[in-house]
Amino acid sequence: MVSLKPLVFCLSRIENLMQKVSFDPQKMEGAIITNTTMVDLKMLDSTLRIFRDVMESGLAVSPYLKVETFGSRAKILSACSITVSAVLLKAGVPVRPRGGGVIEVIDREPVRFTDMLMYWATTIDPIDVLISQELTSVLEMMQTGSGRILGNLQEAPMLAVERIEERLEVLAEAGFSGVLDLGEPNMNVLGVSVERDHVGLSLVGGTNIVAAAMSHGIGLKTESISSLTEIGEMTHIQDLVS
Amino acid sequence: MVSLKPLVFCLSRIENLMQKVSFDPQKMEGAIITNTTMVDLKMLDSTLRIFRDVMESGLAVSPYLKVETFGSRAKILSACSITVSAVLLKAGVPVRPRGGGVIEVIDREPVRFTDMLMYWATTIDPIDVLISQELTSVLEMMQTGSGRILGNLQEAPMLAVERIEERLEVLAEAGFSGVLDLGEPNMNVLGVSVERDHVGLSLVGGTNIVAAAMSHGIGLKTESISSLTEIGEMTHIQDLVS
Repeated sequence: MVSLKPLVFCLSRIENLMQKVSFDPQKMEGAIITNTTMVDLKMLDSTLRIFRDVMESGLAVSPYLKVETFGSRAKILSACSITVSAVLLKAGVPVRPRGGGVIEVIDREPVRFTDMLMYWATTIDPIDVLISQELTSVLEMMQTGSGRILGNLQEAPMLAVERIEERLEVLAEAGFSGVLDLGEPNMNVLGVSVERDHVGLSLVGGTNIVAAAMSHGIGLKTESISSLTEIGEMTHIQDLVS
Repeated sequence: MVSLKPLVFCLSRIENLMQKVSFDPQKMEGAIITNTTMVDLKMLDSTLRIFRDVMESGLAVSPYLKVETFGSRAKILSACSITVSAVLLKAGVPVRPRGGGVIEVIDREPVRFTDMLMYWATTIDPIDVLISQELTSVLEMMQTGSGRILGNLQEAPMLAVERIEERLEVLAEAGFSGVLDLGEPNMNVLGVSVERDHVGLSLVGGTNIVAAAMSHGIGLKTESISSLTEIGEMTHIQDLVS
């Protein structure tokens, strides 16, 4: 007899991680959700330099990384944007991650989702899918102001808007940003409709740093929304790159 | 001003194609839904040999192909399993394609879906996603009877079961097969639940032939559920491979 392991859709993995987030942006304590990237030790320095450039362009969630080495390979843990949703959730906002996608940016203005996968309907992480389909042009966007980046869409009741704005400010002071669009109640966000009496919140994908390094030809293995890391064990990118 | 092109989810592309299918399996006339694969002309013969082996193992939808050459490249059009759904639809069965996934086979018995993406919640074809994630082991399955193959899940009202069985028989006589599981009413199909008073129908993915050739190291570009092809313009694999 074969035991039937049920399919685990992405949203349930995300909710498990959101539940475990203990990050307090004011005290800079607790665990955040991180993406895991593996790279050859030889390429670590050039990878980190690209990561820094992307972070300085505002296309990453936070400038904090944890780097560990295993033999000839390095493991880089970087902030995942679902951390922002988790902080909203812990502040009592019933926020729901809807999906990950590719966002077209024109003249530094996010315009629309060009591709999207809903978290509750895929067992493979949307961002991992989109990275391997090579649909992004993060470097081009940084250089010209127009291109395609990774992002996601969250949804929350419109009555929570004030609380959301207040928390996003606290997060920004702690170095956690990446809000592409906080929609008006009942209005589309980057071309995607939200539920009635809800607002949409679009965040940059934490893995834009990875997409940029990959388009520089660096071979990286990445897994999105994969782990929890204590913010106290993470280092600001400025202290990692000379 | 930028015009906001709406996102096109996979299911609506599929429904457009299903609407256009005119295939009559008894007369062997009309258009079927096909997958498109591009290959270097130099590798065409070895690719077709692998395709034949996979077809003979029962892991493809039909043995008919259309091959066109463009300079140094060949385009292979092969039957997509959504053709089967379209034939059921044209026979009056309200069949709904739910999603594409990876199916674990043990001792030649399909056991469960190990990954799945729902058609109505992704703009990128599930099978294209799964092929690029390299989650299948079609060759291993052919050699040992156990491995992971591509497949999909359809759903229909349980009252349609007789009509479905009758049409599947007609299709099988015409060389269109690939049914992995036709569930009992209200019962899970390969570990995935169906709606109340519905049956699930799991079909092999037409792109198993492509996954097999890719794991032989042949560089192919494939696009699933991409076109319509007249069955009369297609050739039986036996007449293509010596």
